[in-house]
Amino acid sequence: MTELKVAIIGASGYAGAELIRLIMHHPNLELEMIISSQHVGRSLHTVYKHLSHYPLTFEAFEHTEIVKRVDLIFFATPPGISGKWAQSFVQAGKYVVDLSGDFRLESSSTYEKWYQLPAPQRINIQPAVYGLSEWFRESIQRSPFISNPGCFPTASLLALAPLLNQQAISTTDIFIDAKSGISGAGRKVLQPFQFSESNENLRAYKALYHQHIPEIEQIGAKLAKEEIRVQFVPHLVPMNRGILVTIYVTPLLPLTDQDLVELYHDAYRHAPFVRIRSHEYPTTKEVHGSNYCDIGFFKDDRTHRIILFAAIDNLMKGAASQAIQNINIRMGWKEECGLHFMPLYP
Amino acid sequence: MTELKVAIIGASGYAGAELIRLIMHHPNLELEMIISSQHVGRSLHTVYKHLSHYPLTFEAFEHTEIVKRVDLIFFATPPGISGKWAQSFVQAGKYVVDLSGDFRLESSSTYEKWYQLPAPQRINIQPAVYGLSEWFRESIQRSPFISNPGCFPTASLLALAPLLNQQAISTTDIFIDAKSGISGAGRKVLQPFQFSESNENLRAYKALYHQHIPEIEQIGAKLAKEEIRVQFVPHLVPMNRGILVTIYVTPLLPLTDQDLVELYHDAYRHAPFVRIRSHEYPTTKEVHGSNYCDIGFFKDDRTHRIILFAAIDNLMKGAASQAIQNINIRMGWKEECGLHFMPLYP
Amino acid sequence: MTELKVAIIGASGYAGAELIRLIMHHPNLELEMIISSQHVGRSLHTVYKHLSHYPLTFEAFEHTEIVKRVDLIFFATPPGISGKWAQSFVQAGKYVVDLSGDFRLESSSTYEKWYQLPAPQRINIQPAVYGLSEWFRESIQRSPFISNPGCFPTASLLALAPLLNQQAISTTDIFIDAKSGISGAGRKVLQPFQFSESNENLRAYKALYHQHIPEIEQIGAKLAKEEIRVQFVPHLVPMNRGILVTIYVTPLLPLTDQDLVELYHDAYRHAPFVRIRSHEYPTTKEVHGSNYCDIGFFKDDRTHRIILFAAIDNLMKGAASQAIQNINIRMGWKEECGLHFMPLYP
Amino acid sequence: MTELKVAIIGASGYAGAELIRLIMHHPNLELEMIISSQHVGRSLHTVYKHLSHYPLTFEAFEHTEIVKRVDLIFFATPPGISGKWAQSFVQAGKYVVDLSGDFRLESSSTYEKWYQLPAPQRINIQPAVYGLSEWFRESIQRSPFISNPGCFPTASLLALAPLLNQQAISTTDIFIDAKSGISGAGRKVLQPFQFSESNENLRAYKALYHQHIPEIEQIGAKLAKEEIRVQFVPHLVPMNRGILVTIYVTPLLPLTDQDLVELYHDAYRHAPFVRIRSHEYPTTKEVHGSNYCDIGFFKDDRTHRIILFAAIDNLMKGAASQAIQNINIRMGWKEECGLHFMPLYP
Repeated sequence: MTELKVAIIGASGYAGAELIRLIMHHPNLELEMIISSQHVGRSLHTVYKHLSHYPLTFEAFEHTEIVKRVDLIFFATPPGISGKWAQSFVQAGKYVVDLSGDFRLESSSTYEKWYQLPAPQRINIQPAVYGLSEWFRESIQRSPFISNPGCFPTASLLALAPLLNQQAISTTDIFIDAKSGISGAGRKVLQPFQFSESNENLRAYKALYHQHIPEIEQIGAKLAKEEIRVQFVPHLVPMNRGILVTIYVTPLLPLTDQDLVELYHDAYRHAPFVRIRSHEYPTTKEVHGSNYCDIGFFKDDRTHRIILFAAIDNLMKGAASQAIQNINIRMGWKEECGLHFMPLYP
Repeated sequence: MTELKVAIIGASGYAGAELIRLIMHHPNLELEMIISSQHVGRSLHTVYKHLSHYPLTFEAFEHTEIVKRVDLIFFATPPGISGKWAQSFVQAGKYVVDLSGDFRLESSSTYEKWYQLPAPQRINIQPAVYGLSEWFRESIQRSPFISNPGCFPTASLLALAPLLNQQAISTTDIFIDAKSGISGAGRKVLQPFQFSESNENLRAYKALYHQHIPEIEQIGAKLAKEEIRVQFVPHLVPMNRGILVTIYVTPLLPLTDQDLVELYHDAYRHAPFVRIRSHEYPTTKEVHGSNYCDIGFFKDDRTHRIILFAAIDNLMKGAASQAIQNINIRMGWKEECGLHFMPLYP
Repeated sequence: MTELKVAIIGASGYAGAELIRLIMHHPNLELEMIISSQHVGRSLHTVYKHLSHYPLTFEAFEHTEIVKRVDLIFFATPPGISGKWAQSFVQAGKYVVDLSGDFRLESSSTYEKWYQLPAPQRINIQPAVYGLSEWFRESIQRSPFISNPGCFPTASLLALAPLLNQQAISTTDIFIDAKSGISGAGRKVLQPFQFSESNENLRAYKALYHQHIPEIEQIGAKLAKEEIRVQFVPHLVPMNRGILVTIYVTPLLPLTDQDLVELYHDAYRHAPFVRIRSHEYPTTKEVHGSNYCDIGFFKDDRTHRIILFAAIDNLMKGAASQAIQNINIRMGWKEECGLHFMPLYP
Repeated sequence: MTELKVAIIGASGYAGAELIRLIMHHPNLELEMIISSQHVGRSLHTVYKHLSHYPLTFEAFEHTEIVKRVDLIFFATPPGISGKWAQSFVQAGKYVVDLSGDFRLESSSTYEKWYQLPAPQRINIQPAVYGLSEWFRESIQRSPFISNPGCFPTASLLALAPLLNQQAISTTDIFIDAKSGISGAGRKVLQPFQFSESNENLRAYKALYHQHIPEIEQIGAKLAKEEIRVQFVPHLVPMNRGILVTIYVTPLLPLTDQDLVELYHDAYRHAPFVRIRSHEYPTTKEVHGSNYCDIGFFKDDRTHRIILFAAIDNLMKGAASQAIQNINIRMGWKEECGLHFMPLYP
């Protein structure tokens, strides 16, 4: 079986650390380089002591070195970095999975508006495919360049896709109330994310401006085959990991409860990591540390609306483990390869 | 100045304990009886050791005894109890504040549907007034019988009222995504509220059936002078105290940001416990342990919707301290009397 | 390679759930029966929804059925159960790992004093060996009957053993201040373990009477080849998982810092799950979800004492994963087999 | 009644914010100046939004201005600041309460060793008295200059003092295992105190070097009338507030349980903020937000040792509210004046 040598760029953030952990478990991936401008020369276990048994040292970003030594590159970087470099690795014949948002939005002006950064210069290669594994398997299988979805879009789109795909809901009445654990803010050291400020606290942020809004709308439009507009408000919840999205939609068709159950079971019949919870409430604890997305839904006969819930681990299905799932799909390996983690409970 | 002797029925729950604490601080209230069927004969500090300096003993419920010894009765009981007894105390000339939901809903059939209990038998007295202090001051001033609002309705209605009152929003497009700390579930000992189950976890519950839905709709209708219909989904967040509601509404009028600021400042000009945060995000920590309700709002020019936020301490403004505020109003005392608690931060 | 069919008795507690998860990952173990008197007939995923993909149903305890269907039995039961049954399974030729305390104490009277229960009737078989993997490998290899250590003794003894084994410390001046996450209290539904009571709280319990005291003293005596007496006080910390023990000892020999480093590295040279952190502070997060025990130590030249720290995951190295490690040792499989979990961070 | 005008230097830290809150509640104190080099010109509510109703603006440190405008100065500053300035305010006839450690240690060389800073230059005024309210009331009454105790020394000494004072325990066998909520680390923005790093985590720090060690030993020696030597290890616990110390001591006298109860009740007969819990376990939640210190103790007949527990709120009795208590004592006001806060539970 093919084995790929791997580099992680931005390996010292939380998503990077999860990638390291997952690659250690993966039978076909070998971690060759961990790259972090901040920690060059330090050994892995001085930065992440929980991983102390792995003899790797953080290296500086050196394009030629990376090209020479690895087959697959993960970008776990803040916005603005993969935009400069990812395409050249693809041109050099490498596989690239970009966990940042640099290649998620097709329109440069949309990128610049929402990210407040210059858009990546596109070169003449096949653009990145959007790596929402369950809905874009075929294009993922054919592309060396995968743009891994954002954490909120992963949960939101997995919940919405079956309905959007059937043109079953109003595309302008979609309310996504998203809640995330604090690790979603990354490993940046900032006052609002200090324990004493975040613990026993709950708040919203970026109610109008979150960069995941255009991502959800762009991919939602592809699935619905028409434009969609979402109201999206993220919140920070005092826990380490986990995203729960609560979505309010208005059905256009007279769907019964049973119709919904069938629709979702059909949509995810071949999706090993999506668990349909029908009339139950998914919880973040039940997906903690795993690649699962648990989806629940309720039809409200009083209001004629449908309420959707989706729970994921933001660092796993919302970042690192979906990246691995995508590589598994790309390489033709079993989709679950190296991802057989049951959630850690309690 | 009048001093009232007080009994708390259901004094061993969290709202009851908060009432005890608040009454200890109140210059015009004297705690005479604490009543709890579960703890009869035990002294206060064996049940709530944090209150050890107060020489009170839990007593059984004895109607005549209560009538004889106190002027004011707080019910901090589960549904179904005040419904049987509160009115007889009012008839006996007592002040009654009912923190349970038994007298919040005007329609008996609505009560029976949402509470799944027989409705209280109404007797021929003036019905309880709804104690949302900021909006019903005048009727509170005139009534000996106050039905204290639910925690979620308090936050939701304080945020919605200025807009409803102006007929400024669509009455059928109101989405309330509510989040509460675990103390909202009370002191009942149940598996889902065990630490290991609730900590590092996030989930919704009663998405279609919460008994606060008809309460919000009934009072909202009074304010809007027309029926309203809300979508309301509560969530449990791993923290002890605090409610944050995020509300999505659709304006019917072309309100500017400045209009909103003025509308809210006007509405709460004389409300010492409502703090308008305009384009900021209220947080539960900033109201922790206090009677404040912090309200923020954002107009989304992209979606033409308004997003409202309101944060309260569920045991304080959502229960015990609003009950005291109501008694202050009723007695003509200063509204802030005994409630000068700044939030405890961090 | 041999494959063993497995039954878990007491499968619905937290340690039981972890065993299920670990056995799912283990290449040589097949889970055949999950036994819980409380949940007979319910499928696994109705009790533990995070494990929904495993088609097992809880069964009643039936001795003959177990003997017929499995090779290996884990007891993850409260005290008093394995004492009645474990030996008969050993007599029937089965492997037994007992995670309860029923066979940890050699003296029946000691058991009865500390557990406040009748001691198990010993029958004429080889007694259970104490499964502290790193120190009793040879006897574990030879015995079908393993008594798995308690969570606190595991951390305490792994930290103390190198010093006790060298007669390097006073055996009467050993102070173990132990701290545990709330999952250590099990899945029992009790008031003190409700979220609102345990969160933002910290307390000691059983300061004089914890049943792990005689276990530590008995095994410590074996290692020291003389009696030892420990002061042991456990505390509950508001987090789900993790044990940290802080141990204060008085050296009898003039050990230098370098001596300590060598002593510990020597003692655990062949222990894949013990990580020596020398002059660092082990943390519970760095072992979360793994079988690691991280050990740190400091010599205080001012007081002439040594301070030891050991961190484990109470449900893993403190229960389920050490049980698997012991079976790996017993069967001659690689010690790490099925236990390659890196800690989940953050 | 005298009313004092107050300045807080270092008002933007957590202890400073608590002082602001407490002074707002205090009938005889008026907050005139809040001083923070970091926030000059910003209004109070932009830094601490929970306090939004108070019209104060952060000012720069100006010695003459302070002398002109206030009677009482609280230093809530990091080490090294009050050392330069406090004495000059005393000389100018002001009351000074220093919450930092600059004047706690009598020996300059001890200060320099443990604080790693140059010791304050002592000028020819009466030195600061140590403000452990319950044990130094008389000297506090006579001095305008009070050095407020550290948080850990407060809890440790209140637990130890009755025994030390009676020469009842060995002065070289004192083990203090201290646990603190994260707010004890202050409002500094540092990686280890980020939520994702501290939550679900537990660790020790500064096991040999904590600057509270010489403070405990110096004051302990005064109480015992002989030198004492303590082993002291602090830990960080994932909660906002609260300190619990667990102390292991060896009695020199044959104390019975009843002797202990009497000893502690005698020692604190006139201490309104010390609650003797005898054979119970004090918890941090039961003192949360209050000035109480709860003390429990157990005699272990097996080991002939005594175990002491003391719980305080680190920002209250461990800092701000003890400072107010000391001013109350100094001014001859009622000791509880402005401090009637019951703990906030849950």
